[in-house]
Amino acid sequence: QAGSSSYQHSNGSTKMQRVMIIGGDGYCGWATALHLSNKGYQVAIVDSLVRRLFDHQLGLDSLTPIASIHNRLRRWKSITGKNIELYIGDICDFEFLAESFNSFEPDAVVHFGEQRSAPYSMIDRSRAVFTQHNNVIGTLNVLFAIKEFREECHLVKLGTMGEYGTPNIDIEEGYITITHNGRTDTLPYPKQASSFYHLSKVHDSHNIAFTCKAWGIRATDLNQGVVYGVRTDETELHEELNNRFDYDGVFGTALNRFCVQAAVGHPLTVYGKGGQTRGYLDIRDTVQCVELAIANPANPGEFRVFNQFTEQFSVNQLAALVTKAGAKLGLDVQTTNVPNPRVEAEEHYYNAKHTKLIDLGLQPHLLSDSLLDSLLNFAIKYEDRIDKKQIMPSISWKKVGVKPKTVVA
Amino acid sequence: QAGSSSYQHSNGSTKMQRVMIIGGDGYCGWATALHLSNKGYQVAIVDSLVRRLFDHQLGLDSLTPIASIHNRLRRWKSITGKNIELYIGDICDFEFLAESFNSFEPDAVVHFGEQRSAPYSMIDRSRAVFTQHNNVIGTLNVLFAIKEFREECHLVKLGTMGEYGTPNIDIEEGYITITHNGRTDTLPYPKQASSFYHLSKVHDSHNIAFTCKAWGIRATDLNQGVVYGVRTDETELHEELNNRFDYDGVFGTALNRFCVQAAVGHPLTVYGKGGQTRGYLDIRDTVQCVELAIANPANPGEFRVFNQFTEQFSVNQLAALVTKAGAKLGLDVQTTNVPNPRVEAEEHYYNAKHTKLIDLGLQPHLLSDSLLDSLLNFAIKYEDRIDKKQIMPSISWKKVGVKPKTVVA
Ligand SMILES: NC(=O)c1ccc[n+]([C@@H]2O[C@H](COP(=O)([O-])OP(=O)(O)OC[C@H]3O[C@@H](n4cnc5c(N)ncnc54)[C@H](O)[C@@H]3O)[C@@H](O)[C@H]2O)c1
Ligand SMILES: NC(=O)c1ccc[n+]([C@@H]2O[C@H](COP(=O)([O-])OP(=O)(O)OC[C@H]3O[C@@H](n4cnc5c(N)ncnc54)[C@H](O)[C@@H]3O)[C@@H](O)[C@H]2O)c1
Repeated sequence: QAGSSSYQHSNGSTKMQRVMIIGGDGYCGWATALHLSNKGYQVAIVDSLVRRLFDHQLGLDSLTPIASIHNRLRRWKSITGKNIELYIGDICDFEFLAESFNSFEPDAVVHFGEQRSAPYSMIDRSRAVFTQHNNVIGTLNVLFAIKEFREECHLVKLGTMGEYGTPNIDIEEGYITITHNGRTDTLPYPKQASSFYHLSKVHDSHNIAFTCKAWGIRATDLNQGVVYGVRTDETELHEELNNRFDYDGVFGTALNRFCVQAAVGHPLTVYGKGGQTRGYLDIRDTVQCVELAIANPANPGEFRVFNQFTEQFSVNQLAALVTKAGAKLGLDVQTTNVPNPRVEAEEHYYNAKHTKLIDLGLQPHLLSDSLLDSLLNFAIKYEDRIDKKQIMPSISWKKVGVKPKTVVA
Repeated sequence: QAGSSSYQHSNGSTKMQRVMIIGGDGYCGWATALHLSNKGYQVAIVDSLVRRLFDHQLGLDSLTPIASIHNRLRRWKSITGKNIELYIGDICDFEFLAESFNSFEPDAVVHFGEQRSAPYSMIDRSRAVFTQHNNVIGTLNVLFAIKEFREECHLVKLGTMGEYGTPNIDIEEGYITITHNGRTDTLPYPKQASSFYHLSKVHDSHNIAFTCKAWGIRATDLNQGVVYGVRTDETELHEELNNRFDYDGVFGTALNRFCVQAAVGHPLTVYGKGGQTRGYLDIRDTVQCVELAIANPANPGEFRVFNQFTEQFSVNQLAALVTKAGAKLGLDVQTTNVPNPRVEAEEHYYNAKHTKLIDLGLQPHLLSDSLLDSLLNFAIKYEDRIDKKQIMPSISWKKVGVKPKTVVA
């Protein structure tokens, strides 16, 4: 793998690269923070902890018990001797963000810090507005902070494969060359997002592209697929370093959710026909991809887009894989087709390119029997923590209304 | 011209169409409100009057003296006997918007109500954030209001030609058919906006397209070119019905600004090389286009995009036209190339389609000597109201920072 966690100054001295991880208390962010810290990067986490608030408000919880961010960091320090700095605050509050920038002086910012659930963004008007405000304004603030305080700082921003939707042509990495009426240009790939959350990512991408051009910001947009798995080398070191694992209908993502369903004997909930095909990746590859992006930064003014996933699966294919893996463990896994709460094509062409991270050296962890085994065993281990009421989808794309929705236990 | 201001109920009775004009106190909105009222539509204006606040805060003023919205509407009533309802409030405040919807019960909403100056959005971080918040959240609220209270209501939303940027291929109306690796699809035309304002329109377009698909909203996105002119049939009726005319470096648009510059003997301010080509239209065509869109509504679920302009000009071409028209009036018009405060291509291919409104019956007022004469005479008439300090551009795309900018008189 190319790159390294330190770089040589013009005066000859070597300095550790300083990486700010916004959203570092979340699922991808926590794994990435530990991974980079372990690799010798100087890491700071910026997080408002709002994700933990959502859980409280909606009555949800991670399958895995997770320690407070303070205890997580204390434990990491005691085990490895490595210090991760912590800035608690909302990046929509620019005064707070500016303080964090000036105090930590990052060389790279990895921005995971958004409301990232499509169903959450479709609960009611107020959550739709919250999602777009939180994500779009937060990212604008990050761009202004880089411009003002750390011009050279490389922005690594998490986008999603969902920005592209399901066009009937191959999905390229960020750009597409179009020949039209005898002329040719390479343009941003057209976006067809299908939730207020996914749309917020499309907005971010456009805003970032503009600032790269206008201000010379260097940015990498990682259009990530659906992440599965929970263990990484670092979180395994101690239970207090556990990552979160969402299995509920709001924050749980496809494969993780199926494993929990299989473990508790709940039929796998296939939405609609199950032909929905998406890109997927192991959380161990998320951390690898981010490291590769940081180690090989974009040039000043460059808006670089990588499609960050390793394999494509349809929902039906995932269900079949989990059924098979469950059988090996003696689980009788059933599947049920529930009415699709989303608005999406259930049978469609899907072929998305994903070579740029491979070219940088990504060594994928492809979905394997052993990973499925371990996920299923994980779910079985924490079975008594599972709230079965949270499994079925309860948020409908078509029914979202203006009345604030409260959740009754 | 097709369509009409009334429609037949299934029970046989005819009812006047009810049109809500958000931003109806502004430049395009005021002209449109009067025009539709005159044509027999039942009109309501929704406006927070924030545009007048910007003028106060930045020390700007319309070339033409404009009456308060209350006096404007009183005068209109006294002259024509027609009543225009008025709802003063911010559409980002959903309680207010919901009230207006439920009280007025619109059949169509024309949404002009956004912060619409690119330079304003590039003054400082706080105005960049304001612009995106105001425009994106305001439009989200309108979409939710339609879904919740007036499902059948047709949304006519003002976008801008600036959403497309200046690609090296022909610009189509909203969508482009792409053949790629042997497969074909018709996708949203790629967007390359170049200010936080223009970006807010791109965000709006994506949000609206999604709600058409997910909720069956019927919407027309009018990607409008640069509007010039000031008089319409209705505003001519009385001085208290005057439309606003912006000539300053923040809100003034190209042709209008040049006419004022010519009138006061200020050299025409061509930014950079002056090869920047854009679509333009007469304000009398703005009102016509909106009327055509309302009279021929989009179907439920349809997201329809029209490019709303009548002619293309480069900045240099406009300068030459104004120079020539000035000479006829005995004005010695000079031109000066000022450093471009924007980030944009100054020499580029530009060929944008604009046939859909013509197909609906638009009869363009092409830019003519007599229009230029009248604009120049207008500027001469109000010469003593012109503040020459406001003419030069003072906002730089590259220098926008996080520090709040105040304006010193
Ligand atoms: N998990 C996936 O499968 C997946 C797939 C594609 C893309 N992504 C993207 O990766 C990123 C991380 O996803 P995740 O699954 O780890 O989400 P997560 O919800 O577990 O973590 C996000 C973190 O950001 C924090 N945050 C949110 N808004 C903030 C704000 N305004 N200020 C400060 N902190 C804020 C939250 O408190 C949380 O800790 C997101 O941007 C998401 O869209 C995730
Ligand atoms: N003038 C042009 O050349 C031009 C060109 C292309 C597109 N457009 C679009 O046409 C629309 C109208 O432009 P204009 O030149 O008339 O602008 P304007 O600034 O004169 O009018 C906009 C009006 O909207 C109101 N408004 C803004 N935010 C609001 C909010 N949150 N709630 C309620 N009212 C609000 C303002 O008070 C103002 O009266 C805008 O959306 C603009 O982007 C204009």
